[in-house]
Amino acid sequence: MVNVSGMFSESSRGLKSSKIRELMKMASKPGIISLGGGMPDSPNLPFDDVKEIINSWNEERAIEALQYGATKGTNSLIDRIKKRMIERKAIDMNGQDIIITTGSQQALALVSKLFLDPGDIIIVEIPSFIGAIAAFYSFMGKLEGVEVDENGIIPELMEKKIESLIKSGKKVKLIYTIPNFNNPSGITLHKERRPEVLRIAKKFGIPILEDDPYGDFYFSGKDEDYYPIKSYDKDGLVIYLGTFSKVLSPGIRLGWIVAAEELIARLELQKQSFDACTPLLSQVIAEDYIERGYIDSFVEKMRSIYRERRDAAIAALEKYMPEGVMWTKPEGGFFVWVTLPEGIDPEDLFKRSVERNVAFVTGDAFLPREYPNRYIRLSYSNLSPEKIYTGIRIIAEILKEMLVKV
Amino acid sequence: MVNVSGMFSESSRGLKSSKIRELMKMASKPGIISLGGGMPDSPNLPFDDVKEIINSWNEERAIEALQYGATKGTNSLIDRIKKRMIERKAIDMNGQDIIITTGSQQALALVSKLFLDPGDIIIVEIPSFIGAIAAFYSFMGKLEGVEVDENGIIPELMEKKIESLIKSGKKVKLIYTIPNFNNPSGITLHKERRPEVLRIAKKFGIPILEDDPYGDFYFSGKDEDYYPIKSYDKDGLVIYLGTFSKVLSPGIRLGWIVAAEELIARLELQKQSFDACTPLLSQVIAEDYIERGYIDSFVEKMRSIYRERRDAAIAALEKYMPEGVMWTKPEGGFFVWVTLPEGIDPEDLFKRSVERNVAFVTGDAFLPREYPNRYIRLSYSNLSPEKIYTGIRIIAEILKEMLVKV
Repeated sequence: MVNVSGMFSESSRGLKSSKIRELMKMASKPGIISLGGGMPDSPNLPFDDVKEIINSWNEERAIEALQYGATKGTNSLIDRIKKRMIERKAIDMNGQDIIITTGSQQALALVSKLFLDPGDIIIVEIPSFIGAIAAFYSFMGKLEGVEVDENGIIPELMEKKIESLIKSGKKVKLIYTIPNFNNPSGITLHKERRPEVLRIAKKFGIPILEDDPYGDFYFSGKDEDYYPIKSYDKDGLVIYLGTFSKVLSPGIRLGWIVAAEELIARLELQKQSFDACTPLLSQVIAEDYIERGYIDSFVEKMRSIYRERRDAAIAALEKYMPEGVMWTKPEGGFFVWVTLPEGIDPEDLFKRSVERNVAFVTGDAFLPREYPNRYIRLSYSNLSPEKIYTGIRIIAEILKEMLVKV
Repeated sequence: MVNVSGMFSESSRGLKSSKIRELMKMASKPGIISLGGGMPDSPNLPFDDVKEIINSWNEERAIEALQYGATKGTNSLIDRIKKRMIERKAIDMNGQDIIITTGSQQALALVSKLFLDPGDIIIVEIPSFIGAIAAFYSFMGKLEGVEVDENGIIPELMEKKIESLIKSGKKVKLIYTIPNFNNPSGITLHKERRPEVLRIAKKFGIPILEDDPYGDFYFSGKDEDYYPIKSYDKDGLVIYLGTFSKVLSPGIRLGWIVAAEELIARLELQKQSFDACTPLLSQVIAEDYIERGYIDSFVEKMRSIYRERRDAAIAALEKYMPEGVMWTKPEGGFFVWVTLPEGIDPEDLFKRSVERNVAFVTGDAFLPREYPNRYIRLSYSNLSPEKIYTGIRIIAEILKEMLVKV
């Protein structure tokens, strides 16, 4: 065999296999209670709707779904999403446009490639989404974390951080945030802080990359309590990411970007060489899914299912966890973020839990490299309340055993 | 609006909107005879098979198709493709592995990102595939063209070219080729030249990126006449790209890479941040499509349909084209490459043809930047023989008018 690894590009030589993936392989044994993957509830995936939609297609529609399509996405899907962005997210689409992406992960890669030269800085919440972190590192960006409290990013801290970075000659290219029910922390950026974060971005002229996969799944209140930062944006400074992964299916890999027209045109150019176009089959299914109103009834149904699971998770944490353990109280979404007591090694806890058939994700996956970890993420989205309860009870028992020895 | 274009990365500032796309917009009027896009035949897309497959799924299978999946692809799809690679392409899978990609275009982007630093060189055939060229440029590669004759790459020319590039201190990272019925030229790399091209690659230690979207669609002979370069590869030096776009549907965006295990592992790492995973819906459809044997009967059927169209194209060219026009004689695939007489501007010919309701693609899309163009590409894959005949007759008429004035 000829070894060609000496020919790898600089950016790909830096890629590392994540320890998490190795850990998660340990956790893929049958019968395990997995509080690991952030997946939508499997039994409720709307397969009957998808089947009904596909069976309704005539030849013309079938050809549209199976042929090549425009890089930007189908006009009819873009129009339907535009309407939803205006009506449900209060986004002013004036001067803004939409491109369909192959899942939100592709959007993260496209935006990273558009902005990042090696060494450029991205401001991220501590903790932040593993897929975004991977995309930023993949294009040789550097992460600077901003601490959050129970109301999300602390604007003053972010402002100071950016100011000092710029003063020291650094190029800050993006502010990345998941304001609604952050993955992994479950924390929500308070409504009143949203314009403040935008003000700071504008002050320094730095685009905000707003990732909103969970925004529809709030457990109380109404749409306007969770309007995105993009809804306050009059300057085309916010790049908003949406996805069908939680409101329809992750397996169709369908997301979208809302941004200023010029940015969408640049992202479209980039997407040409990334995958030419997003699966038409997925796009045409999603068009019909919105058109028939299935999306709204699905969101409504899943909201109460996920709320019940969040309640089970919090109840179990309160009942079983020993002193010194802290956790977030998510107002929506899929995740609880747990801070472990001093002296507890999250990886050790993970291995012991897997031995007793319970899995989760250790926190280091969600932190910039070299950031100390004392966290775990619990995902309640794809488990029955009973299993959530049992899983958390077992983790708590193990923790108590470990604490005796600390 | 805040203008953030000053923050774009170096690699994205270099991206240009292709003139072709602008031209093709002119050509999207209703009723036009399009010899433009390289699309599989629309009416024969196997929608009934896809529908039957989806309707056959039980709940477990449906969940698999709609949930998240592994970045590398589903094991069962990978296993089925492996079997085909061994049986139909004579590829030795020893030490080799497969990753599923979101179309072949993603494979091109992943391989580009894995190997290319700014200024690195990729050897390409003249002419070469527009999507590959876009991917190489997108990662700031530089193209060096090698002339071909009717039997494809001229090995001696390629060897000399690489030698002189290396002597002048250049880093040659990849040799990119479409050996079977090249897009756009329709030319096939002769069977006897394949080991020779591989020998040269091995001599310099440069990986071959072998793109084989059309290999199943030969018009005479048998599989072994078109075995890929990869089938001769004992050193893991060939990265082979396959796709379902022509044997099932482009709209499901499904391709694969066969390469040395270590390379597949690196590409998998990279794909994590590109789109996390390829649509599971597409993967599960393709699994069943292979398993039920539909792929073989479809290829068999389409081979004779495309052959008939190639025959129509060649007959029309012979009958109508004025002296001084030359064209290739494809043994398979979708395309004929036409060399125009001196003094004829391909873009001018294009505009006049569109006025008379016929479209094609001008050759510059398939050439490295600044390479002089006197070519057009005619695609016969998605038109009836009658329309192919009419379209080529009209182009020939316009050419004759233009020649009078030259």
